[in-house]
Amino acid sequence: MAKDVHPPRGMRDFLPVEKSRRDSVLSIIRETYLGHGFQEIETPALEDLARLTSGQGGDNEKLAFRVMKRGAELESALLEANGETSDGLADLGLRYDLTVPLTRYYATNRSKLPAVFKALQTGPVWRAERPQKGRYRQFVQCDIDIIGDSTVLAEIELLNASLDALTAIGLNDATIRVNHRGILVGLLEHCGFEHAIHGKVLISVDKLDKVGVAGVAKELTDDFGDIAQVQKLVAALERFASAGNHELSAQAIGELVGESATAEQIDTLTTIGQAIAARFGKNRLRFDPTLVRGMGYYTGSIFEIEHPESGSSIGGGGRYDGMVGRWLGQDSPAVGISIGFERAIELVAASTDEVKAVVLVLDDAEATTIGNALNLQVGLIDLGYRVRLEQRPKKLNILLESMAEQGFSSFATVGQELVDLSALNIRPLN
Amino acid sequence: MAKDVHPPRGMRDFLPVEKSRRDSVLSIIRETYLGHGFQEIETPALEDLARLTSGQGGDNEKLAFRVMKRGAELESALLEANGETSDGLADLGLRYDLTVPLTRYYATNRSKLPAVFKALQTGPVWRAERPQKGRYRQFVQCDIDIIGDSTVLAEIELLNASLDALTAIGLNDATIRVNHRGILVGLLEHCGFEHAIHGKVLISVDKLDKVGVAGVAKELTDDFGDIAQVQKLVAALERFASAGNHELSAQAIGELVGESATAEQIDTLTTIGQAIAARFGKNRLRFDPTLVRGMGYYTGSIFEIEHPESGSSIGGGGRYDGMVGRWLGQDSPAVGISIGFERAIELVAASTDEVKAVVLVLDDAEATTIGNALNLQVGLIDLGYRVRLEQRPKKLNILLESMAEQGFSSFATVGQELVDLSALNIRPLN
Repeated sequence: MAKDVHPPRGMRDFLPVEKSRRDSVLSIIRETYLGHGFQEIETPALEDLARLTSGQGGDNEKLAFRVMKRGAELESALLEANGETSDGLADLGLRYDLTVPLTRYYATNRSKLPAVFKALQTGPVWRAERPQKGRYRQFVQCDIDIIGDSTVLAEIELLNASLDALTAIGLNDATIRVNHRGILVGLLEHCGFEHAIHGKVLISVDKLDKVGVAGVAKELTDDFGDIAQVQKLVAALERFASAGNHELSAQAIGELVGESATAEQIDTLTTIGQAIAARFGKNRLRFDPTLVRGMGYYTGSIFEIEHPESGSSIGGGGRYDGMVGRWLGQDSPAVGISIGFERAIELVAASTDEVKAVVLVLDDAEATTIGNALNLQVGLIDLGYRVRLEQRPKKLNILLESMAEQGFSSFATVGQELVDLSALNIRPLN
Repeated sequence: MAKDVHPPRGMRDFLPVEKSRRDSVLSIIRETYLGHGFQEIETPALEDLARLTSGQGGDNEKLAFRVMKRGAELESALLEANGETSDGLADLGLRYDLTVPLTRYYATNRSKLPAVFKALQTGPVWRAERPQKGRYRQFVQCDIDIIGDSTVLAEIELLNASLDALTAIGLNDATIRVNHRGILVGLLEHCGFEHAIHGKVLISVDKLDKVGVAGVAKELTDDFGDIAQVQKLVAALERFASAGNHELSAQAIGELVGESATAEQIDTLTTIGQAIAARFGKNRLRFDPTLVRGMGYYTGSIFEIEHPESGSSIGGGGRYDGMVGRWLGQDSPAVGISIGFERAIELVAASTDEVKAVVLVLDDAEATTIGNALNLQVGLIDLGYRVRLEQRPKKLNILLESMAEQGFSSFATVGQELVDLSALNIRPLN
């Protein structure tokens, strides 16, 4: 029977060594963000389904796990559905990201929060995706968001803290691509695309990383014909591609999109670039006029985190000034960035932190021996050890090998004779 | 609209100050258990519904939130149900405790775990209970379990570690009542009750705390009549009640239940009592021959944690040797204890740990000022501060008051003039 016992499809158990590694990396990210003055919050795993599917979550809304109504409410919903539809049978859903819950949280608790709210939230989210390598149905996100600050200081703080967090977990080579939704719109306007089809055009541009300029050109031509607008956009994409590294400076941005971007948009990105370059040099932020970001709710700057050893992005975010107002009935500026923890941790080298962990082997099961072991254990814990008690098995070697695999580094034996802690013979496990 | 925005019924948002307190208390519990050699694991929030409702979870099974099937599977389940039943519409459920997932985890991963597995798991669980004061639909449990050790050392380790954890969070007055399922059964046999009705009798005995001996006597008489068995049991309960404090010693246990308990059962409890008394004195463990514990899966010793300031238990556990075998197809001894985090944290005094947290107020929004602020921030973070940037508002006092409420203790101002960290004027917030 045991061979059929698994966690649900696409979800994972974590063995002790991996759990410990995950916690240690997550702690470093959280401590870095707390150091930057972000305040940690927690929201429930479940939200009202109506909120989760109200159009803020994009494609993710379809992936929400739906929780059935209960009791009499379920009975009457069943009658009404009459076996023909699942509508109305569920009232709650598991969150598929941390952004929709954050905006709901802000609307609920605004009177108790500071005028500028700098939130840190980490935790699992759930998506009923088709399981595949590196994609899970339960996975952890690490989000920071600033609500209530419309100035570029908010963007600077987010990117500054994120680069510090990524560096702290050893991802010194992580870089962030930056763009501005307004610059994208300006580019499409400049090429002559009507507003109504911007969304569709952007879906094609978003595929640039995967299919290259030629692929995007083909898709646009297939969709819209070999029209002047498409030719103009493809020419711009070719120019972007051949221009090499795009610094986040006024000059570089001006050369690339000066014709179509406003001075204010260029100034926003330039101010961000200057501030970050002063701490991290010019290579950690890069201007990418083709960066789209899927979610429809972005209104200003957008970011995507990448790493040379990862084939896909390891996080991203942007400004979403309109979204908070949805619950609040009053607009609030907001900007956020999320580290995809599962992608990031794949890149983090295994921890080299040695935990002092000792196995105390009890020679026998007598009460005196147990008493001695408990005394030594509490003494060693006070010295900073993790101390595991084990009864001596027939083959001590097998036990010690197994304990070494579990991360224990040393052992000592305890018998009926009282031994002072200072006289305890602690030997390495290998 | 904002007034209608709430988390789902019975679930909670945590504001930053409370979140920080919860994390700090949970960390102390986890660190204590890690110190005792328990290994932390993680299981998914969702488990297969069939497993969650296979009879191991007692009454909690009815309280599981059920997650609907998706796609084609949902379609065909709907057709089959035909609006008449919800059976078959759900395939997953949110875990209602950490014990069922642990036993499933052990069956799944046994080949990668040590022979004696000492597990620590903390995390949220979900129950669709009628929300009421102090009862939530999402709440945190902290469990430690030992699988693979049939000896009393396992009980001793669990109780020893739990008392250390409770003491570490300041609950020095927490005590643990101990009983043995075998002793309860022996008592009922001694009174002459047939095995078939033991379960029903125990449900009445379990109400002793709430209704007293007279209440239990009335309920038993109502159920079974004024028969000799009931009279004998009530006499025993009266004797237990009048015997005062029940030490976990051979003498005290012998006097109370010597007629009906086996020598082995008494020896088990006495060995536990001796070992714990040597570290914590005689008052932290108490023998309670009327302790029942609701769950049907217990097979040996049972525990319940209480605190003089709490009206209800703040945790409990026991030995459940038969349960792991359910998934594994092969019995494994197991014993565990759970701290109900929500009950425990209500008793913990607000933390007096002062975090060094400073607000840097930017005099203006110029790039130079932002640059100076970012430099000072990283310097202060290196010194162990949490550093929050704020743009100077019209009324600085209101900002500073709000920051003090959020736990920040000091502030400094930053302008366009470069200030050395050592010259920064950091002032207290109140």
